Amino acid sequence: MGKLARRVAIVGAGMSKFGQWFPLKRNPDLWVDAWIDALNRVDNGIEPKEIDACYVGNYSSDLFNHQGHLGPQMANLVGLTPKPAPRFEGACASSGVAFRQAILAIASGVHDVITVCGCESMTEVSTTLVTDTLATASDNIFEYPAGATFPGLYAAIASAHFHKYGTTPEDLMRVGIKNHENGKENPFAQMQQSIKDIMASKIKKAESQGGSIPEWKDEIDFLKSSSNPMIASPLRLFDCSLVTDGAACLFLAAEDVAKKYTDTPIWITGTGQGSASLSLHDRNDITSFIATKEAAKQAYLMAGLQPKDIQIAEVHDCFTIAEILAMEDLGFYEKGKAAEAIKNGESKRDGILPINTSGGLKSKGHPVGATGAAMAVEIFKQMRGIAERNRQVKFDVEKALTHNLGGSGGTCVVTIYQK
Amino acid sequence: MGKLARRVAIVGAGMSKFGQWFPLKRNPDLWVDAWIDALNRVDNGIEPKEIDACYVGNYSSDLFNHQGHLGPQMANLVGLTPKPAPRFEGACASSGVAFRQAILAIASGVHDVITVCGCESMTEVSTTLVTDTLATASDNIFEYPAGATFPGLYAAIASAHFHKYGTTPEDLMRVGIKNHENGKENPFAQMQQSIKDIMASKIKKAESQGGSIPEWKDEIDFLKSSSNPMIASPLRLFDCSLVTDGAACLFLAAEDVAKKYTDTPIWITGTGQGSASLSLHDRNDITSFIATKEAAKQAYLMAGLQPKDIQIAEVHDCFTIAEILAMEDLGFYEKGKAAEAIKNGESKRDGILPINTSGGLKSKGHPVGATGAAMAVEIFKQMRGIAERNRQVKFDVEKALTHNLGGSGGTCVVTIYQK
Repeated sequence: MGKLARRVAIVGAGMSKFGQWFPLKRNPDLWVDAWIDALNRVDNGIEPKEIDACYVGNYSSDLFNHQGHLGPQMANLVGLTPKPAPRFEGACASSGVAFRQAILAIASGVHDVITVCGCESMTEVSTTLVTDTLATASDNIFEYPAGATFPGLYAAIASAHFHKYGTTPEDLMRVGIKNHENGKENPFAQMQQSIKDIMASKIKKAESQGGSIPEWKDEIDFLKSSSNPMIASPLRLFDCSLVTDGAACLFLAAEDVAKKYTDTPIWITGTGQGSASLSLHDRNDITSFIATKEAAKQAYLMAGLQPKDIQIAEVHDCFTIAEILAMEDLGFYEKGKAAEAIKNGESKRDGILPINTSGGLKSKGHPVGATGAAMAVEIFKQMRGIAERNRQVKFDVEKALTHNLGGSGGTCVVTIYQK
Repeated sequence: MGKLARRVAIVGAGMSKFGQWFPLKRNPDLWVDAWIDALNRVDNGIEPKEIDACYVGNYSSDLFNHQGHLGPQMANLVGLTPKPAPRFEGACASSGVAFRQAILAIASGVHDVITVCGCESMTEVSTTLVTDTLATASDNIFEYPAGATFPGLYAAIASAHFHKYGTTPEDLMRVGIKNHENGKENPFAQMQQSIKDIMASKIKKAESQGGSIPEWKDEIDFLKSSSNPMIASPLRLFDCSLVTDGAACLFLAAEDVAKKYTDTPIWITGTGQGSASLSLHDRNDITSFIATKEAAKQAYLMAGLQPKDIQIAEVHDCFTIAEILAMEDLGFYEKGKAAEAIKNGESKRDGILPINTSGGLKSKGHPVGATGAAMAVEIFKQMRGIAERNRQVKFDVEKALTHNLGGSGGTCVVTIYQK
């Protein structure tokens, strides 16, 4: 793996409000929302005529919306016809893949400015069909016919991690508690409530209905109660990310032209991508994702950085156990040590390595094809010091990382950002 | 649009036999067939460890096979795990898009050698569902709900071209006759029969059954008969390409390493991609594809060539009218003049500009996600002088072009090849 032939920067980034929008909004509407939000964050403005291509990341509008060939449609909506408009797919890492390919396309010398679209409109189909559609990102020869959808596959991963490292259900719960605390501070998040808020609203509801008032000692006690039903043991409802409609938009520019758009470009200094067999039974170890390790290795090498240099990160918490695996596979912590760090508050907003200040997939939401690009939106804001409400970290962010996973670790894209 | 930061070459190319293979073969099997065929054409051999990434073009394994996330699966089958394995989609131009992105990724400096996979397994679902699935590449807000699948959309395009330029049904038939003559000479083609062969077999069948013996004056007379039923006026059965399972494989290498694999790399000197609104009613003119014009403009500019410099081409004849539009939009002929050139035999194997020597989508077959890569396979063979049977052109091919279209012209990728 070599170096980028020229440097690439993010000069604008934005997103739609994440939520459940059907029938009001589908991919075209969500994308235009994200485009306008990003446009407003390009300091000196940008015109469609200055943009060379529209790179679209989307998992399966085919199955969710019976609409394929999304690239030209998205480009057309923002005045980019007849420019190149390819679509990229890597399951839940689809816009991570689009983002990476846009970086490579600019580095190649062929394009100077590319807009990256990540989008997914999931709520047009029933929840059962959402689970079924997402399961097409697993192996359909062995896993899917056996009924192993993603909650089950990640439950197997969690169980193996519990067995090998002594991780506990409470460790998983602390990931969700933290991410909901962050999502509360994100006006674009689907669930802007802390677990305490959710507990309070349940108590208020019980009071208003004259029922018995629940008495929980704390958030962990609440998350162990029947209010947090088991989905696939050991994963409960609040260990799972959300079903979401949403889009995100990035404007990328070559070093030659970046300064035209802003005095403070966010440079991409490392990009890596890895893959793994789709099926878990084909892997030597399911407590670690080789796709993450490979993508991270490439990205660190390209950036000339080490895990200890990273100051904040957005990682792929499709399930709470996935955040723990990411923290370890990215080299932030030794295998089996992330849970203790979480318990110590190290990954909180005021900790030594804030993770998922956006609220993560757990609280911000997870429109699968939009997630990778939305991670970059959060990093852009944190590095610019413009993250909304109370979630801006208190130090100057010079070096950051995003980790975008597809399926049960079949694809991973890691990106490193520097000022 | 700038130049490629470094040169890229094809050092090996191959394909599976195209045909209708379900239930014997699906994407994994077809891809391995194509990989082995391509491997055998890398002069000095190539090992998985030398390959940096696997770029997969596929339209909709989601809808055809209920399997998304195809990249990691394809990479795993040929020993490339845990390397990057993104999937690319541009409707019927999906592997054209994968091919283009692989070229840019190598030019970027990040990768030296990439294998491109194009694959589609279409016959697992019924023919009705094939048409329905392909229709997701049209606009699902206006066109699809109105029942306008691709034969109907291309029929509208043909009618408009007839009206504006006086093109006739016989002009379309001559495209099919030529492409079947070429496909007969391609051992990888789905239909290895000329129209004359098909006529002869129908006569033989009638004779053996003791029925009335059909008397056709010539191929045109046959194609005007009830043996060639109307599908969507003016398009008849033999104006439509085939429903096919198949895969193709390319090995691409940076100029720095290409000579390690062969003394005769085929250089990519131009690549372009264009887009258009998905829906026909959004366009000013449907007798010309702006995506083709844009892609061609970029590719010619990059290569420093003009249409007259091109010696052979593979163009996207999903319907016979599409080959005529391509010949005009690529600048080989003025608008409205291609039909006359076809009549004069200029696009035949022994003509002045042979087109679709492979048999084209009409006779070789059209596994949609594989088509773009398979076009490059034919050009590789013609430039090397190794095209099978009697279809090798009689002159030394120094400059060639491929034209890969998605949907009703929503996406187009044009590639220029030189020795």
